[in-house]
Order: sequence, then structure tokens, then C-alpha cells
Amino acid sequence: MVGNFIFENPTKIIFGEGSFNALSEELKKYPRRILFVYGGGSIKKNGIYEKICEILKESDKEVTELPGVMPNPTLEKLYEGIEVARKAKSEFILAVGGGSVIDYAKALSASVHLEGDPWEEYFTKFEEPTCEILPIGTVLTMVGTGSEMNGGSVITNKKLGMKVGKVFGTELFPKFSILDPTFTYSLPPYQMISGISDILSHLMEQYFSGHDDSVSDYLMEGLMRSVIDNSKIAVKNPTNYEARSNLMWAATLALNTLVECGKPGDWNVHMIGQAIGAITNAAHGMTLSAVEIPYYKMIYRDGLHQFAKFAKNVWMIPSEGKSEEELALAGINALENYLKEMGMSLSIKDFGATQKEIPNIVNATLLGNAGYHPLSKEEVKEILEASLND
Amino acid sequence: MVGNFIFENPTKIIFGEGSFNALSEELKKYPRRILFVYGGGSIKKNGIYEKICEILKESDKEVTELPGVMPNPTLEKLYEGIEVARKAKSEFILAVGGGSVIDYAKALSASVHLEGDPWEEYFTKFEEPTCEILPIGTVLTMVGTGSEMNGGSVITNKKLGMKVGKVFGTELFPKFSILDPTFTYSLPPYQMISGISDILSHLMEQYFSGHDDSVSDYLMEGLMRSVIDNSKIAVKNPTNYEARSNLMWAATLALNTLVECGKPGDWNVHMIGQAIGAITNAAHGMTLSAVEIPYYKMIYRDGLHQFAKFAKNVWMIPSEGKSEEELALAGINALENYLKEMGMSLSIKDFGATQKEIPNIVNATLLGNAGYHPLSKEEVKEILEASLND
Repeated sequence: MVGNFIFENPTKIIFGEGSFNALSEELKKYPRRILFVYGGGSIKKNGIYEKICEILKESDKEVTELPGVMPNPTLEKLYEGIEVARKAKSEFILAVGGGSVIDYAKALSASVHLEGDPWEEYFTKFEEPTCEILPIGTVLTMVGTGSEMNGGSVITNKKLGMKVGKVFGTELFPKFSILDPTFTYSLPPYQMISGISDILSHLMEQYFSGHDDSVSDYLMEGLMRSVIDNSKIAVKNPTNYEARSNLMWAATLALNTLVECGKPGDWNVHMIGQAIGAITNAAHGMTLSAVEIPYYKMIYRDGLHQFAKFAKNVWMIPSEGKSEEELALAGINALENYLKEMGMSLSIKDFGATQKEIPNIVNATLLGNAGYHPLSKEEVKEILEASLND
Repeated sequence: MVGNFIFENPTKIIFGEGSFNALSEELKKYPRRILFVYGGGSIKKNGIYEKICEILKESDKEVTELPGVMPNPTLEKLYEGIEVARKAKSEFILAVGGGSVIDYAKALSASVHLEGDPWEEYFTKFEEPTCEILPIGTVLTMVGTGSEMNGGSVITNKKLGMKVGKVFGTELFPKFSILDPTFTYSLPPYQMISGISDILSHLMEQYFSGHDDSVSDYLMEGLMRSVIDNSKIAVKNPTNYEARSNLMWAATLALNTLVECGKPGDWNVHMIGQAIGAITNAAHGMTLSAVEIPYYKMIYRDGLHQFAKFAKNVWMIPSEGKSEEELALAGINALENYLKEMGMSLSIKDFGATQKEIPNIVNATLLGNAGYHPLSKEEVKEILEASLND
């Protein structure tokens, strides 16, 4: 590890089967007027909604519900939430759902008392909030984003065809997050697999950067191995608690700012994936797997040693008698086989994208400068075309 | 991971060369009357003392110094500190040093406003503090204990011949810890090696427990590999920044409550090591290496699969054609060779212990029930005798 860093993560994680019972105790620490934010209603089908309402009632909280947060939450929905929260004089946000709901809750918590426009302030100028922020608590029902233990928030501006992420400081981190792996049992397989793809991508995005020996890389190699081992079990047996709990905790650790310590990070896959999501509304994790292979095949030579390490220490490919180039390619090949085995998308045509959408996706891609190989727009087009023709 | 857990760690880590410059900014957040706690004076030799004084002066703080915290800080020293802090009406403790100084600062921070006796309350009855607690900030000058990012505190009662650890809750965690790897360059080699032994032992104590597949194990395997790789470099070249920074961060992560999530932990090596420390005043890390090999040879059959994993995933011993028993023994053998190569103690005779001290050490050993193999006093005696005769 060569880079300097500051690490601070105050979120309290309450983890395990039955951890949900801690909710009423946690809520006691926060004010009375609660905004209860959730998604499309799956929590009504699996019984979580009723459990929450019971606890809120017993806790003598004044509750306003804000349902209908969609995957890729929109700016319009954010405006709606601001109005609801202001009218209800909300003092605390309880977000129950997956990454979209929690991302949304964060943007909302920093916008309720904001004078200006949140798109302008947070997702265009990337300013830090100076207004009062509502504290957030979460109950996680889907794994993948890591939003339950970080300051990230991604909002989609439909009018501009843009999906933009903002990383807030620790004051926006959830105060507590309740992670009960059994809450993920009833997830539709497609959503689960998409979430797993997201976890693995978070790790690869942070792993494929830097040329030094770093504790963070050793941690990520372990997390990637754990995700690969346990995802194979969870896909076959969705109610295997051990596999589900490992995936849930690995997902949180993959994006709670721990493994990025001292590393620059890459995030080009997410930049392209988010653009695909903005144009096609595809599931986030699937947009990542759909571009990973052509992307890594394009850039691996710029981080050859790290790609060789990835093959050896993550996919356990014997290194004897192999050049770094051969090892690196064997690792990318192992990744491709895994994505296929898991049923992850390898082509953007799965989302209905055609050659026609490619210029729009290229246009919506925000390019960074980190990682091994800063991309040109032309290269993004190449990657998308390779994905389309897979 | 099967066990439920709560993870909460609010300590802010400021890491890297030059991170010391953040101290004055951090101190602004805390009250004016500072108790500046440090050890035997090494910070006066390496220039850190002067730098601190300069910053404290510029920050317009009212400073009371409390020097002379010894390795294995004593209860008597704690009583002295309470008196000094009360007289000075201290509002904040700045601890500059290694684990002993920080451990001491924590015990002190929970004792200044305590009505009863701290040994009685915290180290005998293991009560939680209900009195006011002084906030702590730390500047770390030696790696090993992880005390900079946890609630642990170990105090030695000379009169009773006991060295006892207490794990406090998050309110006792340092508010911030400044980790500048270059501050460890001037450490005497013996102390550095002892610290490295402590780090590795922390990881092994937590790794050798549980029979399930756990994210925590994957993290620890990575951390152990990083410690082994980098310690070899640091011993040869103490000013290799990459090695020093990796060791420093791995040490913190090894004991900041992260890798114990969902695992029971063992800690028998520390229980015996602390007893050795109380009787002989040996360096903490060396007391651990001195009993590890006989201890693990005694218990490995009770956690055979985990010991085999240790051989494969930490020492990279090829598993083909080997039974779990053979693998497990090969792993312990690799550990022994490493301890030797690093110059760590393999025998308690290094600390002047003889057969005569063994009953006292056995007597001072607090035995736990976690891990694979709860020890009897007779077995502790066996381990110590094996160490003595190594």
C-alpha cells in the first residue's frame, strides 16, 4: 500500500438471522417522525412490510410512507420525496429494500432541507451538503450495492438520459443497517444473480488499479474467492444460510470504503454499465457483466502483473510454466466461464439494445481517469459493439 | 459465516506518510485541557515529542504531560494517571506510542470519573463504564496491538501477578488514530519483530475457531499472507515504506473487531502469553511465539479442516496427495520455520523462565472456553514445559 488514506465508517451493522428484532431498540435513539421509504411492494408479499409496521406502531412513531422507489431511482421520484418529507416534517428516514431504495434515501436525506436543486448541487456540481441532513436507518432486503454501509447514491435523470453517482461523506452513511440473510431468500433468481455480479464487479473495479503490493488487494482476493464459492451454492440452493450470509457480508465489505484504502480504483465498468442502465433500464449487475470481458481484454496489458495475480490468487490457476500474459488471459477466461455458469448477461442485446442505442450509451458514459487505461469514447464504442456481438 | 454479530467501529483512521499533519485539525474538534500520555521517552529521541508539543502549542491547548507508561502498564501507573488527570481537570487524552500507551489511555479514560476502583470494576467484574468517559485520540508509533482502532485494554496487577484484558464498547474506541508508517522506522528490531508476532497471533487466534465457511476466514488468510510477505521485507529493510505501511494497516485490521465477525475466536495463546508477561515482563509478541508451536501441535486435530486450510491458503502448500492431517502438520511446520526465520522466541527460557516459574505462569493463566480445545491447567503446564525445553 502506497497511497495515503482516511478511513472512517460509523455505520452500525446488525447482522444475522433474527437481527431484525433489534430495529425497535435502534429506533428509540432517533426522533419520532419517520419517513418509511420502500420499493415496488415486494416487502408486502414476503411479510417484511407487516413486521416493520408492527414495530413502528409499538415504538409509538409517527409514520409517513413513501413507497414506489424504482430500480434506478429517478430525479422525479426524488422531487416527490422532498415534498412528502417536508409536508410530514420527517426527522428520520427508514429505508427498507435494496440498493436503489437506500441510495434514494440518502439523496433524499440531503435534499429535504436543501434550498437549491439536488440534481444541480449533488449530481452536477458534486457539492457537499451544508444543510441539515436527516439520519437514515436501513433494513436490507437485497444484496449487491453495499449502499447499507457507505455514502454512495446513484440517481437517474430521465430527461437528460443520465445515471449519476455521488459519494457523500460519513454524515450520510446509514446510522444503522440491519442485515438478515433470510430476507434475501425470496428474491427472484434474476435479481439475486444481478446482485452477485454487482458485488464481484465492485471488487474487480477496485482490484484492477495500482501497481504496488497492498493489504487491500489481499483482502479483495479473499472476498472475491468467498463470493465465487458462495454464489455457486446460493444459485443452486437459495435458502442455504451459510452461502446467503457470506454473500451478504461480502457485499457490504466490497463497497464500504474498506478495500479501496490506499488504492486509486478504476470504475470504468460501472461508468459504462450506468450508461447502459440509463438508456435501457436493465438490471444494474447485468449491465456490468455484459461489458466486463471486452473491457478487461482491452486493458489487461496495462496492468499485466495484477491480472496475473488475479488468475493465481482468485481463480487458483497454477502459475508454473506460464507467462504473465498467459496467466492474465487464463484469469479473464475463468471469469468469463463463471459469468456464463451463473447466468449473468454477457451481451447488451439481452437488454434489447441494438446498434442504434450504442451512440446514446457512449454519450451517456462518464469517463474517469483512474485505473490502468483511461478510455476514449471510441474505445467505449468498441467495448459495446463487442458486447452486442457476443 | 454462521454466527450473528454486531459490527460498529467509529474510529477515524488517518493513514500514511505525513498524516501526522492532520493532528491539529482533529484536535480542534475536542476540548482544551489535554492529557498528553506517552511512554519511556523514545518519542523524545526520534523527534515525535517535539512535533507534538509544537502542534499543541499552536492549537492553544492546555497541556498536562503524563510520561512513563511502561510496556505491560501497571495498575499503580493507572492510579497515578487518575490523580494527575483529576488534578488537571483533563477533558481529552492524547496517547502517543504503541499498544501499551493506548491501552493505558483507555483504562484511564474510563477511570478518571469512576467512583469505584478500576481494577475491581473493569478487570475483575468486567463491568461497563457508566461514568463520564474522556475522549481519546492517538498517534501510533509501533505496530502490533491494534489498540488504535478497538476498545481493548490490558492492565497488569503486579501485586496479584496478573495481566488482564478488558474489551470496552465503542464509546472507548479512539476518536481518531494517526498512523504514519515512517514513525515505525526507528523502532528497535526486537520490538518490531515482537509486534509482527503479535499481529500474526491475533489473526491465528481468530482464525482457529469455527467449523463453517466464513468471509472472515478469507479476510484473515489474506491478512496473514500480507503480514508474512511484508514482514520478511521489513526485517531486512526497516525503511521500506511499502512493507511498513502494509504491516501497519494489517495490524490494525487484525484486531479492529472486523475479522472476528461471526466467529467465536480462541485466544488461548494470548491467555498463556499474558501470564508469561505478568511473571517475566517479556515482550508481549515474543511470549506468544514461544508457546504457539506446542499449543497448535496439541490442538490441531480438533480443528483439522481449518488447520489444513491454513496450510493451503496461507502458506500455499500444495494439497495434492496429502491427507488433511499431513497438510495441517505441514502448515504448523511452515509457521515454525517462519518464526525461526524472523528471530521470534520459540522458548520461554529466552525470558529467563525456568521450571520454577512454570507453576506461577500456569496459575496466572486465565482459561477461556472458546476455540477448538478448552485447555486444562495440566495442559498449560505441558505447553510451557515443551516451550522451555525447545
